[in-house]
Parts: sequence; structure tokens; C-alpha cells
Amino acid sequence: MKALEEKILAEGQVYPGNVLKVGSFLNHQIDVPFMCECGKEFFSLFKDEGVNKVLTIEASGIAIAALTAQYFECPLVFAKKSKTSNVADNVYMSEVKSYTHNCVNQVIVEKAYLNPGDKVLVIDDFLAHGEALTGLFDLVRQAGAEVVGAGILIEKAFQDGGASLREQGYHIESLARVASMDAETGTVTFVK
Amino acid sequence: MKALEEKILAEGQVYPGNVLKVGSFLNHQIDVPFMCECGKEFFSLFKDEGVNKVLTIEASGIAIAALTAQYFECPLVFAKKSKTSNVADNVYMSEVKSYTHNCVNQVIVEKAYLNPGDKVLVIDDFLAHGEALTGLFDLVRQAGAEVVGAGILIEKAFQDGGASLREQGYHIESLARVASMDAETGTVTFVK
Repeated sequence: MKALEEKILAEGQVYPGNVLKVGSFLNHQIDVPFMCECGKEFFSLFKDEGVNKVLTIEASGIAIAALTAQYFECPLVFAKKSKTSNVADNVYMSEVKSYTHNCVNQVIVEKAYLNPGDKVLVIDDFLAHGEALTGLFDLVRQAGAEVVGAGILIEKAFQDGGASLREQGYHIESLARVASMDAETGTVTFVK
Repeated sequence: MKALEEKILAEGQVYPGNVLKVGSFLNHQIDVPFMCECGKEFFSLFKDEGVNKVLTIEASGIAIAALTAQYFECPLVFAKKSKTSNVADNVYMSEVKSYTHNCVNQVIVEKAYLNPGDKVLVIDDFLAHGEALTGLFDLVRQAGAEVVGAGILIEKAFQDGGASLREQGYHIESLARVASMDAETGTVTFVK
């Protein structure tokens, strides 16, 4: 999506460790009219797949996931990060490693909100190593529901998550695919 | 808003300690088409106020705030809960006591995203003691911006937050105002 690439070039900031800061429109302040356009794009990519539920993970995926779900006219479920390893009987739980924060989070969804027969579109802001998506897909599988695919705003295509998940057969659509980032020069290039 | 009262009666669950669980449409699973209707209602209540920014607090306010901001065609900023008391120079910080979790959270917004001249509508899911709203209003004040008002989905009108903030002159609109809750019978009544 050309407009998203332009937005990243105009407003994104590159930091050492392959950190791309997009707090001005995505992670802290959210450019809602622009994110509506991204949501429409996800709708156009997945509209024939029978999606009846959108799933994301708190916190920065929630806005784009909600704005996307409205075009599917379906509910959104967000997986919660749990501090405790005492998980109740009424939840599905998976583990997600965070490279950014160097920790493992338990992520949970109450069983009532994911059901066999659900056709689930997973939405998230970033895809890098694929840990969050893998955890969310696992929650869907535990529920006996179906992963229709995943819509991602920004994929770090130089990391292995996207390639690995596509090899496993998942339908992953990323609106911007970063080929390289350089913190010294501040440059970002995209996959052609 | 009659439809929200009906939704609470149909799906809300009352627990001891004045806990109203609305995970099926608001706090965990989000009924997005319904929340769009709530967002339109907030727009109709505040549309003449020159709102150019919506502010909420992570995590469960984000979806309704994003869906509301689209009708104002403006950005959303969400205040982040910070674990550390080491607050950087580039953020506004306030403290919010959580009665639910019995702790105090630092909440922060990067200075770049709240500016003098901004006319800010605060959106949140619940209003009880008013701690979260007070903290968010404080962030707006620190930025030299203006609080236009606050749009709340569910106000626990038997607690003192709403009355106190209205007395201070804030324009608070709550789409459902709970007059009483009874965990034993599961009943919820609303302010007439």
C-alpha cells in the first residue's frame, strides 16, 4: 500500500536494533482516518473469506483491528497479556516471546469468545519474528476455529516471521514490507 | 442510550464489589457494529465543540475511542500505563489509582501528541470514582490543551466520580448511567 510506505518514510524513525518508531500515526497517536483506509484495504483483501471475527492482541493492535472489523461488520476479540501463570479454566492460553521487551507473555482469550466454526482474521500492527501471530493462531486452533489469514500493517521482511508463516500455508497480507532499515542514515527501503 | 442499557441487561454480569462484567461486547470481545453506533452518539453529543483530538487510556478504551474518532475525522492518542517511575523528559505524566487492581499507575503521553490549542475529547469505557478521567484531564492541562468533555459508555452513577467532575465544570456524557447493581440477584437499574 503505497500510502503506508509514504507515511513510514515521512514519519517513521529508525533506531538501533531494527526499531521502527511509528508513534505519530500507529503506536501512540493513531491517525484514525488513515487507519480506516488501511482497514478498508484489509477488507478488500479478505472480503471473500467468510470472516466472522477479528482477533488481535493488546494494546497497539486494538485500534486498527477495531477499525478493520467494522468493514466486516463483525466482533473483535483482543487477547490479553496475563501477568500470572495461574490460568483459569475458562481461557485459552498461549505464550508469546517479546524480542522488544525480552520476556515471555502469557496471552489469553476467554473460551466464550472463540468458538468452533469461527473464521478468524488476525490483525496486528507489526510482523517481525512472528511470535505474536504464532501465539494468536495457536489460540484459534485451541478453540477449534479456523484462521482465515492475517493482516499486518508493517512487516519487517528482513526477519523470518512472515516467510516462515507463509511456508506453513498461512495467508499473510502486509500493507508495507520493509526490506531494510538503517539507524545511522535513518533510511527505510521496501520490498518491491 | 436505550440500546446500551438493553445490552447491559442482556449480557452484563454483576459480581460482588460492584463489578459489572461486559466482556462479551466491550472489554474483551467488542461488538464493533454496536460500538460504531455508540461512537456516532458521542459525535452527535460533541460535534459542535471543535474536537480535533480524542484521548483515552490503554487498553479497553482504545477500541471505542478509535471508532469514535473516525466520526470526528481526527487522531486518537492513548495514554500508556508505565511500570517505571523513571519518566522521560519528553512525556507528560499523571497518576491514576486503580480501585479494581488496588494500585497506582503512572500514565504517560508523549509531549509531541498533545499540544496547546488542541480541543480534546476524552473517551473511556467506565466512569466510577473518576480516577482515570482526572488523570487524563491532568495530562491535557499539562499540555496547555483544552478538555472539551468526556464521553463514557457506562457510568456507575452511585459512585462519586461523575458528580464530582460535573461539579468542577466538566461536560461529561455517559451513554448508560447505572443507578444500582446487585450481585446476589444479578439486577442492574439505570438512572431515569
